[in-house]
Amino acid sequence: MTQADIEAAASRFTTDGRAFIRRTPLWKLPGSALGVACAEIWLKLEQLQVGGSFKARGMYNRLLANPIPASGVIVASGGNAGIATAAAARALGVKCEVFVPTVSSPAKQAKLRELGADVVVTGAVYAEALEACLARQRETHALLTHAYDQEEVVAGAGTLAMEIEEQGGEPPDSVLVSVGGGGLIAGIAAWFGDRSRVVALEPELAPTLFRARAAGKPVDVAVSGIAADSLGAKRIGAIAWEITQRHVPEALLLPDDAIRAAQLTLWKEFKLAVEPAAALGLAALQSGAYVPKADEIVALVLCGANLDPATLA
Amino acid sequence: MTQADIEAAASRFTTDGRAFIRRTPLWKLPGSALGVACAEIWLKLEQLQVGGSFKARGMYNRLLANPIPASGVIVASGGNAGIATAAAARALGVKCEVFVPTVSSPAKQAKLRELGADVVVTGAVYAEALEACLARQRETHALLTHAYDQEEVVAGAGTLAMEIEEQGGEPPDSVLVSVGGGGLIAGIAAWFGDRSRVVALEPELAPTLFRARAAGKPVDVAVSGIAADSLGAKRIGAIAWEITQRHVPEALLLPDDAIRAAQLTLWKEFKLAVEPAAALGLAALQSGAYVPKADEIVALVLCGANLDPATLA
Repeated sequence: MTQADIEAAASRFTTDGRAFIRRTPLWKLPGSALGVACAEIWLKLEQLQVGGSFKARGMYNRLLANPIPASGVIVASGGNAGIATAAAARALGVKCEVFVPTVSSPAKQAKLRELGADVVVTGAVYAEALEACLARQRETHALLTHAYDQEEVVAGAGTLAMEIEEQGGEPPDSVLVSVGGGGLIAGIAAWFGDRSRVVALEPELAPTLFRARAAGKPVDVAVSGIAADSLGAKRIGAIAWEITQRHVPEALLLPDDAIRAAQLTLWKEFKLAVEPAAALGLAALQSGAYVPKADEIVALVLCGANLDPATLA
Repeated sequence: MTQADIEAAASRFTTDGRAFIRRTPLWKLPGSALGVACAEIWLKLEQLQVGGSFKARGMYNRLLANPIPASGVIVASGGNAGIATAAAARALGVKCEVFVPTVSSPAKQAKLRELGADVVVTGAVYAEALEACLARQRETHALLTHAYDQEEVVAGAGTLAMEIEEQGGEPPDSVLVSVGGGGLIAGIAAWFGDRSRVVALEPELAPTLFRARAAGKPVDVAVSGIAADSLGAKRIGAIAWEITQRHVPEALLLPDDAIRAAQLTLWKEFKLAVEPAAALGLAALQSGAYVPKADEIVALVLCGANLDPATLA
């Protein structure tokens, strides 16, 4: 996984002609606007991406980079990767089957059906939905997209970091990134390497990277809590493990109440409607889990907005 | 009202040191991303402004440009101008009294109190709240901010157009702007003059500019419907009337159902949570009320997001 793989993904997006992947805004604010004692905070508004999360980047890259059989594409997903795959499949006019665990939100399941996907709800957690999906794929030979652990998926996610650098005019000093299976942070760390300090953030109740570090290798963890429907991968991906070991010095844990408070700040003070998984960066700053330097430029990735808006009231 | 007045307002914002007014993102999309047959659509994400609407620009400019007595500031407002005045007063550490009509949303009233304002709920419509406010001001001599019909307020709103041009790199071919009392469109038309085609959009149920044009002068109109709480001014402002007569050739009316449909598109397809008043631009495009040329760059101003998010579900 190199910068060249990420540039190739970005090039696929722009030469494809469908303009399916959106170039989402980077919003530069003084740290003081968010009550943080640092020079600047850059909000990458990736929750405005097609399908409502960054996942479209990886899925669309996977689909563009491979031949797609008549049986179409197939994916197991806690929700956002499924929505992204379904949206990408519809854009390309190919069939799509999505396996989701029962923990995934009804709003996300409804959205999948709206996008024309065949939805199979099975398994209490992501890993069980994945198992059923893999068995089905062996029958149909559909093109499998993995929610986070495929080279094209990680490279697609990396285009987000490339955009941050282009839009910002330089790499930020630090980038705070939410981690579930690790596809997003892998792509971001692959792009920035050691040119930015990439910080991993996880809910205390879904600590895949934190526990892997304690164990010295990826291990299964129990997942629950406020962000489980999008950060509820059971184990950090192999690609993410490899890249984060090289380029991500810190993996911080955040309690659900700090995540919820940050989500409400983003809505009430900034009118940014995001899902809990997208609020970990601000939660780290508000709670003091991450303390930037006075002259630091901190980038936060608002990674998704597939939520029931009534939960913001 | 000249470009120089608008530049002076922008300069007050940047030299003030509080960074109270936010430079909101301009999001450039291909027309096809919104299903519109034009070259580009620029979304000015002004609903992310402090206080949740463009009104902060005008109110803050009014407060910075005048001495503020010990009795503080006073305003009558359908909601957003009151929120903006209260937020600006808090930032400057001065007292604030806000008069709102009973039609204003409970969410906006609660927000005003959160911001430390004294809230007086009186009158069925804006004009009645204004009357009570003016009587009170004659007693207290507080600095009056008008929701739309003061030079500094219009110049502050104009800074939004200045930003669109800076961020876009050129003036858009057209700008679609929602009109209530007309403060926003007056500022935008004063900035662009005839360099962009500024189009006025109003709900059928709140047609202040449309009816003024029919009558040949500003006249009182009955207001109701989905956007009445923010576009519910009873009569177009004198400043807006003068500027729009020179620079705004078209005033289009839109039915509430088209406005609601556009509001839901912005949420469901773009995760932009906006109030109905902010959806008129997309409503005009989706309904065919405004048909751009194939090579046209159309700017839409998403002017506010003070809504109950549950209404998006």
